[in-house]
Amino acid sequence: MNILLLVAHGSRREESNLEVESLSKKMLKFDSSQFDQVIPAFLEFASPSIPEAIKQCHEKGAKHVTVLPYFLSAGVHINRDIPEEVNKASENFPNLEINITNYFGSRDEIAELLMMTAIGK
Amino acid sequence: MNILLLVAHGSRREESNLEVESLSKKMLKFDSSQFDQVIPAFLEFASPSIPEAIKQCHEKGAKHVTVLPYFLSAGVHINRDIPEEVNKASENFPNLEINITNYFGSRDEIAELLMMTAIGK
Repeated sequence: MNILLLVAHGSRREESNLEVESLSKKMLKFDSSQFDQVIPAFLEFASPSIPEAIKQCHEKGAKHVTVLPYFLSAGVHINRDIPEEVNKASENFPNLEINITNYFGSRDEIAELLMMTAIGK
Repeated sequence: MNILLLVAHGSRREESNLEVESLSKKMLKFDSSQFDQVIPAFLEFASPSIPEAIKQCHEKGAKHVTVLPYFLSAGVHINRDIPEEVNKASENFPNLEINITNYFGSRDEIAELLMMTAIGK
């Protein structure tokens, strides 16, 4: 079983966290070839945290977890916090293979989508 | 003259702010029909701030400024901070027409782009 963790920053505002949960539910519609489930996880202000979500993956019987950082820029969260949380959690589950993908903000499509948003398309 | 302000959160990490600057430079390639310039602005940790950027727009002779929030979720920055900063700045420039667009994270394309990122496409 392969699980995709959609890792967002998390907000004090519950609606923002629900947006991430809703996104995680939509993702498999586009391609379900590589993941059995998509689970949201949060760095701050919401649960599950990354360690909690990785524990859940283990309990669900996952062999492989892919961590996808839903962040716009490669700040400290991408360069330090997420790898640290993943490393800490993975020590508890040495048989779970965990990889971290590129962060969302690295996608080339963003400039065009921003312009479309600006012109109301 | 119409100026588009690409408003990002801003980071302590200079590279993150440079990513936003680089994005702002790419955007006009996709559609230059509605804006003469795209300028980055930051809520925290980097300059120009929103009021500084709006002042720059006025000095450049802009008649209209469109504020595009480059944020993933509708948290306090979208619901309170950006509108407050824009309102404060606009009091100083009553002849400048300023509007705020939807935030980037509201785009329907995101779930698919996230899945593409997850599967390495």
